[in-house]
Amino acid sequence: MTTTYHFQTVKHIVHGAHSLDLLADKLALLDTPVKRIALITQPAMEQLGVIDRVTAALAQKDVEVLIVRDVEPEPTIGNVESVFSEQIAPFAPHAILSIGGGSVLDAAKLFAVRLTNEQPLREWLGIDLIRKPGVPLILVPTTAGTGSEVTPNAIVTLPDEALKVGIVSRHLLPQLVILDAALTLKLPKAITAATGMDAFVHSLESYISTKANPVSDMFAMESMRLIGANIVEAYEHGESIKAREAMMLGSMYGGLALTAAGTAAVHALAYPLGGMFNITHGVANAMLLPHVMAFNMDACAGRLADVAHALSLCAHDDNEEAAARKLIERINEWTAAVDIPQDLRKFGVSEDDLDALAVAAAKVKRLLGNNPKPLSLDDMKAIYRRLLP
Amino acid sequence: MTTTYHFQTVKHIVHGAHSLDLLADKLALLDTPVKRIALITQPAMEQLGVIDRVTAALAQKDVEVLIVRDVEPEPTIGNVESVFSEQIAPFAPHAILSIGGGSVLDAAKLFAVRLTNEQPLREWLGIDLIRKPGVPLILVPTTAGTGSEVTPNAIVTLPDEALKVGIVSRHLLPQLVILDAALTLKLPKAITAATGMDAFVHSLESYISTKANPVSDMFAMESMRLIGANIVEAYEHGESIKAREAMMLGSMYGGLALTAAGTAAVHALAYPLGGMFNITHGVANAMLLPHVMAFNMDACAGRLADVAHALSLCAHDDNEEAAARKLIERINEWTAAVDIPQDLRKFGVSEDDLDALAVAAAKVKRLLGNNPKPLSLDDMKAIYRRLLP
Ligand SMILES: [Fe+2]
Ligand SMILES: [Fe+2]
Repeated sequence: MTTTYHFQTVKHIVHGAHSLDLLADKLALLDTPVKRIALITQPAMEQLGVIDRVTAALAQKDVEVLIVRDVEPEPTIGNVESVFSEQIAPFAPHAILSIGGGSVLDAAKLFAVRLTNEQPLREWLGIDLIRKPGVPLILVPTTAGTGSEVTPNAIVTLPDEALKVGIVSRHLLPQLVILDAALTLKLPKAITAATGMDAFVHSLESYISTKANPVSDMFAMESMRLIGANIVEAYEHGESIKAREAMMLGSMYGGLALTAAGTAAVHALAYPLGGMFNITHGVANAMLLPHVMAFNMDACAGRLADVAHALSLCAHDDNEEAAARKLIERINEWTAAVDIPQDLRKFGVSEDDLDALAVAAAKVKRLLGNNPKPLSLDDMKAIYRRLLP
Repeated sequence: MTTTYHFQTVKHIVHGAHSLDLLADKLALLDTPVKRIALITQPAMEQLGVIDRVTAALAQKDVEVLIVRDVEPEPTIGNVESVFSEQIAPFAPHAILSIGGGSVLDAAKLFAVRLTNEQPLREWLGIDLIRKPGVPLILVPTTAGTGSEVTPNAIVTLPDEALKVGIVSRHLLPQLVILDAALTLKLPKAITAATGMDAFVHSLESYISTKANPVSDMFAMESMRLIGANIVEAYEHGESIKAREAMMLGSMYGGLALTAAGTAAVHALAYPLGGMFNITHGVANAMLLPHVMAFNMDACAGRLADVAHALSLCAHDDNEEAAARKLIERINEWTAAVDIPQDLRKFGVSEDDLDALAVAAAKVKRLLGNNPKPLSLDDMKAIYRRLLP
């Protein structure tokens, strides 16, 4: 067993604690030579000294680095466009490198294609509207996580409509991913909890998706095994590199699973909680997860039972529904253990908001279409109401 | 569950019975437009009418097709070079498409990079010696299989030395893979047996490799589950699309596993049997597999036991060695069921050849280095001798 290795499917994923130290050497894997690179990052990584280390290693290879710090936490289209035109475009980098959380990686993906495509971001909203491949893109996630490093998606905010929208294109996939769990050792507990639960939701929703398939199933199942066995440990003992590595890998597999099969009603219902009440994506997902799965029960008890068995949560002779219920119980135990609340009132949501939330969620048709059971407006309201105990 | 789906890690794998019918539509996934394509194939596919169907579908999209039939079964460097200069280069295709077994796919990989690189093949023998990416490459395997469709390797023969050598380069990876198990329904039994066992060996050797890692383990294990549950069925009931699909997927995962972790002593010992006695690669591997694993037992009983448990071959309370022995027994049952002999005399090998075989195998240092236990010349002779009962 080696701890750092090189996994190629068609492009490259390097995984292992401290594998970021290999970055400068791995530039040789890119299809074109790189002498000027824009590094999209966020303050936490600078404070940890990570950015200085990377910049020094790149300087040794005569690579000039522009550090870009101005991507907002959940960037608007305007923010991405202005950082692009003010900083990235004038520097004309040969490649884009990003070390950060999901939003930062998403913005980096857009910069890479913006360098080779004339159209403004607004024309890319939707699926497959980016015409040309971008410059080489290297993604280094610092949470575990969105799985953004392996998805062809970028999420941006339309501020006027308080709405998050997706840009989906094969040209948003990176040429190189580095999974270095050492970068997550100092992650705040709340972020460990929210992003870890989000990753689990990616895999569970992929597994019950109407688009599930043997390949997405394999990634989803392995992801759930890893996250299920490690999320509480990663939360309670953040310095455990073993737990952090498992979470990092599980999160990446979750990204592969959702790319192949899609997320479903949990994500659809979570988006308005983010847009209207500013609830963190992973927190909203984690809150909704047990209730959406209880609702889905009659459509996918067998699939939920598969997961319960894979996580060793039940006896061999449990029937499907009993096994599925044990999975839902376990999810509730996790969210309690990682201090995710089960009350939307804490975020200012009241009974009066349920109509508007359900109407907004109903617009997320693509994800609702992946759900194994259709949801009426009343179904959605009832699910939200479970979170107003 | 959908039966045909699109799996993206970074490039594209399409899987499903009859997914080859989607080929013309999927050309849009390539980074550059394609109006002229060279189709590298072999007679069996023409006889099945597959090539006519593909050519007609491409013609409808105004894509001109050159059919190339002259790649030899296990091509020499000279064969690849002459087909290239006589047929491929004058046609100047925008892309290479290959529908065939492992050797044909390997030659196609080399054509794709030969179109963009000046150096002759001879300069590429080894690792990472190809300088530039090739034209877009689409691979459609018709056996299950070598896993060649997802590996960065091409094997060619040096006729003067009766030696097979590898060319390894990330530039040999395709942009698009189509896994259409319907193409394998009429595969002759002997090929189903040899290629199916070869695929299992890829995964088992990857799983016990010194370079094994969590990602290669996941692919290897899923591959072994699929192949273990389906190889005898695919052999006995070749028309079973369910068995054929499982074998196709298992073989692809085997390719991913071996790319990440490498094969080991079974492959090292099999090469001289191919080179000196013309024994089919998969047959040589299948013959050697149980004996090499018995030899490896004290170095990797735990890993072999993992596999036995995953394939449900043993009781929970079996100790490691007992579980591992059950895996070896099961392998012996499979080779018997698919009519692979256990006697090298049938191929003209005698006691007098063992020295030369061992000396030749000892040269395959890269693969021997992946084996969990070192092999002396005497060890290798002893293993070969087990096959002279
Ligand atoms: Fe999510
Ligand atoms: Fe092989």
